[in-house]
Amino acid sequence: MSDTQLTLIDEVRTRFGPRAAITDPADVEPWLTDWRGRFHGSARAILSPSSTEEVSAIVKLAGEHRVPLVPQGGNTSMVGGATPPGDGSALILSLRRMNRLRTISAQHNVAIVEAGMILQQLHEQAAAVGRRFPLTLGSRGSCTVGGLISTNAGGTQVLRFGTMRSLVAGLEAVLPDGSIHSGLSGLKKDNRGYSLDQLLVGAEGTLGIVTAAALRLVPAVYSRAVGWAGVGDPQAALALLRDFEAKTDRIEGFELIPADSLELVLRHIPGTRNPLDGEHKWNVLIEATSSAPGFDPVELLQSLLAGAIGDKLVEDAMVASSESQAEALWRIRDSISEAERTDGPSTAHDISVAVADMPTFLLEAKAAVERAFPGTIASAFGHLGDGNLHFHVRAGSRSMPGWNQREGHEIERFVDDLVTAAGGSISAEHGIGQMKRGELERLAAPGDLAALRAIKNALDPHGLMNPGKLVG
Amino acid sequence: MSDTQLTLIDEVRTRFGPRAAITDPADVEPWLTDWRGRFHGSARAILSPSSTEEVSAIVKLAGEHRVPLVPQGGNTSMVGGATPPGDGSALILSLRRMNRLRTISAQHNVAIVEAGMILQQLHEQAAAVGRRFPLTLGSRGSCTVGGLISTNAGGTQVLRFGTMRSLVAGLEAVLPDGSIHSGLSGLKKDNRGYSLDQLLVGAEGTLGIVTAAALRLVPAVYSRAVGWAGVGDPQAALALLRDFEAKTDRIEGFELIPADSLELVLRHIPGTRNPLDGEHKWNVLIEATSSAPGFDPVELLQSLLAGAIGDKLVEDAMVASSESQAEALWRIRDSISEAERTDGPSTAHDISVAVADMPTFLLEAKAAVERAFPGTIASAFGHLGDGNLHFHVRAGSRSMPGWNQREGHEIERFVDDLVTAAGGSISAEHGIGQMKRGELERLAAPGDLAALRAIKNALDPHGLMNPGKLVG
Repeated sequence: MSDTQLTLIDEVRTRFGPRAAITDPADVEPWLTDWRGRFHGSARAILSPSSTEEVSAIVKLAGEHRVPLVPQGGNTSMVGGATPPGDGSALILSLRRMNRLRTISAQHNVAIVEAGMILQQLHEQAAAVGRRFPLTLGSRGSCTVGGLISTNAGGTQVLRFGTMRSLVAGLEAVLPDGSIHSGLSGLKKDNRGYSLDQLLVGAEGTLGIVTAAALRLVPAVYSRAVGWAGVGDPQAALALLRDFEAKTDRIEGFELIPADSLELVLRHIPGTRNPLDGEHKWNVLIEATSSAPGFDPVELLQSLLAGAIGDKLVEDAMVASSESQAEALWRIRDSISEAERTDGPSTAHDISVAVADMPTFLLEAKAAVERAFPGTIASAFGHLGDGNLHFHVRAGSRSMPGWNQREGHEIERFVDDLVTAAGGSISAEHGIGQMKRGELERLAAPGDLAALRAIKNALDPHGLMNPGKLVG
Repeated sequence: MSDTQLTLIDEVRTRFGPRAAITDPADVEPWLTDWRGRFHGSARAILSPSSTEEVSAIVKLAGEHRVPLVPQGGNTSMVGGATPPGDGSALILSLRRMNRLRTISAQHNVAIVEAGMILQQLHEQAAAVGRRFPLTLGSRGSCTVGGLISTNAGGTQVLRFGTMRSLVAGLEAVLPDGSIHSGLSGLKKDNRGYSLDQLLVGAEGTLGIVTAAALRLVPAVYSRAVGWAGVGDPQAALALLRDFEAKTDRIEGFELIPADSLELVLRHIPGTRNPLDGEHKWNVLIEATSSAPGFDPVELLQSLLAGAIGDKLVEDAMVASSESQAEALWRIRDSISEAERTDGPSTAHDISVAVADMPTFLLEAKAAVERAFPGTIASAFGHLGDGNLHFHVRAGSRSMPGWNQREGHEIERFVDDLVTAAGGSISAEHGIGQMKRGELERLAAPGDLAALRAIKNALDPHGLMNPGKLVG
């Protein structure tokens, strides 16, 4: 194994220069562990090509020498998706040198960027031509376009513009045999068989290496309105969202927050205050935007909320009157996880169900968890319009050292069972990676799992693409 | 072969009743030829299950007996995609009895329907709850949901709402091993590996049988405006579209029509007249809609067109002042093919290029074809905003008996070469079926083609799903 790896590294260096293969342990080390420090791997080198042709050559060489490759962008996977195996059998293939903007067109609302471009740079490139790339998430300063595509990333703006899948107009990728798939024309209509682009989105680098993408841009935000409403139950919150959607397509954020999450934030996060005078069992944070001066989202949101109060859908509501007030509302939402951590150990579950099922599911799942693990406190908040829950279970009175490693895992399986029984997904946003392979195998429909494996084996018969991830 | 087919037919009859296997030649015969009469096949029976479980059982039985199945909906394929092989080796699997509406929700904008539902029924079901299923095409009275999904159908409303792919929220399908893939929850966020739903869209029944789908609905049309504008060249037409898109998202139709197509319609189709006083080298037909009374699309379109005349993007324009005038404008567009047929033999090419490339491509392709085949007249019209051309070549002075069968085929290959060189697609809407298998093999990137074949062989190792289509 070592000898073939050395031969491969030498060939890459000879053909593509010293920067194309990093072997100094001090330079390799930081990329062997995932950003949360949960997964640790081993690799002798990071291969770092600067062009699609170099990626193609490396994949071909790796195929000849049977050396597995672990593609890596910003190394921000939540499921160990970019961490190499521990036995040193694989090399890392970093896309970070391939970070160029190839073309951008405001007129056609499309940017063609390489896989290693960092999301924040993409935001800046789009802004520079008066447009917006609407997907965003916490790791925007590190995560790369290739990783976002390979994990079909979501985030907070999915309600209006969809996940990464719907923002990809076309892909360029190196397939496991080293051939280059060129889909950057971004054809709106193309029916030449199975869509390789769609297959590569969310494939976690196990079917090939995404090297570039044609991405959709949308109008820049001219102004926004952020509001807060108290409602009686999740069903009312969903009815409110559907009511708004029937009247406008300007709603970009719609976050559900239970009373106990709000209470935790107010207790643990300095400088926060309840946006409304009274207490409400459930709250929603709503954001509406405009892309042009002619239309005022504040007026829109005020009028929508006033109507909803009249219809008894909403108990009380307010709309931020300044940008700093708007930020304060978002700060409450964004501080929930931190407040929970301050409160003691908890588990976090990245799950989704059908949007229509979400109100019932989150109440029933909370009750089921608290019944099965008396003393725990389950709470769900998050993207109501996406059916995507941040379902967290706090240890509560069961808290003890090592709770997360022991009962936490039991609770994970319990929640995964509940969401599977409800027809939902055990991985809404993060993918499978290393972390959820066991749960995927345990819970996926056997026929679906067999199909995923058949696809993997067909396209990557030697198992060289991101080994140990997903079904590899 | 015959014996195993008989055994299979008997088993299906015994288990699912006489209606589940049609063998009377008079009943089978109409489904052995495609609707245009170009492809002829042979089959001893039409299997006609009434439920997903029956489809699953039939696929398992067919697997055991190694009998290929040709799934069929409305039999409206343009490329022989639903016609069985001529040697009688396969049976037809009709989905037409599975035509139920399972659920529909105006609130959640989703309908779950079985594969055999006819598109027009789906339109009616959506309208009955105050919603719209926005995809439509000429065969709407016959084509079925399963076929629309399996061909990733397009049509005239793609500009705003996308092709079938973007209207599918989730699928139920029977995979080649008989297992049932259940994706009808329609999860908005789901990252459990490769998307089988997305793989089945456009797979032409070669990877399994779509049995039901969760489909997105959109607001019903409250009123529409249809306008006509004369422009100097296709580049101006595209600039006009981009100008409008930057100002509104209400544009649903944007069709490009060259002067010679308009002239043919005016000459051959009774009752048609030029919508404008003068002649223009190129014309565009524009449709804008509203979904609520508060907003008048006629005013919007008038104001957009007035601005465009001021900006010199448009030479002259009008907006229909009545629904009958609006229909008269669409009639011009919809009569182009008929007018061309009246004028003599012609070829039709279902091709696409990137939207931004379309103006240049259509001018250059026209010139190239007319240079290579002197005397022919090439013209392109169609969905400018989709990069989807109806590129037609009329025989002109080269017309002679059998022109279509001889020179027509040469021209097809010539046009396919041009579109491939431009990074476009030889099948924008219709799929590959039987008709374009040779061209796909000749022109697809070898690595892509190998990947398509590997997927096909992995999921359907015995080649029993729609044999002879796509890469099967």
